[in-house]
Amino acid sequence: MSDETPPARRGRRPAGEDTRRLITEAARSEFADKGYEGTSLRAVARVAGVDPALVHHYFDGKADLFAQSVVLTRVNPAVMVDRVLQGPLDTLGERLVRTFLAVWDDADNQERLVALVRAVHTNDEVAALMREFVAREITGRVTRRTQVAGAPLRGALAAAQLIGLATTRYVVRMPAMVEASHDDLAAWLGPVLQGYLVDP
Amino acid sequence: MSDETPPARRGRRPAGEDTRRLITEAARSEFADKGYEGTSLRAVARVAGVDPALVHHYFDGKADLFAQSVVLTRVNPAVMVDRVLQGPLDTLGERLVRTFLAVWDDADNQERLVALVRAVHTNDEVAALMREFVAREITGRVTRRTQVAGAPLRGALAAAQLIGLATTRYVVRMPAMVEASHDDLAAWLGPVLQGYLVDP
Repeated sequence: MSDETPPARRGRRPAGEDTRRLITEAARSEFADKGYEGTSLRAVARVAGVDPALVHHYFDGKADLFAQSVVLTRVNPAVMVDRVLQGPLDTLGERLVRTFLAVWDDADNQERLVALVRAVHTNDEVAALMREFVAREITGRVTRRTQVAGAPLRGALAAAQLIGLATTRYVVRMPAMVEASHDDLAAWLGPVLQGYLVDP
Repeated sequence: MSDETPPARRGRRPAGEDTRRLITEAARSEFADKGYEGTSLRAVARVAGVDPALVHHYFDGKADLFAQSVVLTRVNPAVMVDRVLQGPLDTLGERLVRTFLAVWDDADNQERLVALVRAVHTNDEVAALMREFVAREITGRVTRRTQVAGAPLRGALAAAQLIGLATTRYVVRMPAMVEASHDDLAAWLGPVLQGYLVDP
């Protein structure tokens, strides 16, 4: 049956998918070897044997390439964080909690993110990658916006709270955490994240 | 060489060690089969083929047996929590953070606890056990003492913050978290845990 599929369509689809796959495979290998900071889109293109322009065609920068090759989610974390940061600073904590929950409660993302959290806990290379990635693309962006003293520890405390939220709600699945609504969690965790990230 | 060891000493030491080992092996199997709530010290003694009095001789209750057979740390979490709860309620959050850090920063405990955190993230049975154990021996004890409304979610939020602290400081090892002193962490996290567990 599949032999009867028109050749033009068969030819076009797999070509793009093959290129994309070559790039994500090269990215996984480069991230594993060089770490997050040490990986460049140019080097990934070279390893994949494709023109650097194609990497930019398929992926919206390094954070997106990382998300789609290592984290395996279609959400670009850097874009999400920038969107959260665009609103007023005095409600940043609440927006961060609500965005985090929206991304994680999407069933398709959740499966991939739980797999990532498991990998972070069992594979030292993945843990090192995540450490760099979170520092640069998440807490780095947030603390450049908030401009408060003690930024690295503040960012790490916020990361700790959100990672603990993910573990208790999506991995260990503590009943009270699973049953809590986004409103409940935003009411409790919003002010805490606001305190960590923004308050003097 | 070892054949020349005096028989009396060889006989006595292994006897106690064998009994202890029989009990911890039976406990691991019972906890895995029946869960934390469903496991009784009497049933563990029966499976181990020893008198129930011996279980009480070697272990200070179910939480201690769990800690020493599954968690593999010499700290009895229930006793630690009770000690933390004995002080005044208005400094509970800070005492909880400091005790948590003291237990985790002990090198011998840390290795075993990191192994446990990894197992919680990769083995659903261990995750289920920890969920029951934390609910009963940790957050259950705390919320019986604090007597505030919404206790299960409050306990889960505190657990989330402490689990995230463990992950970022001891597993992912984010530099700002690793470098932070107990005083720094108590100053930041103490009021947050106080808010989750005690404040109205």
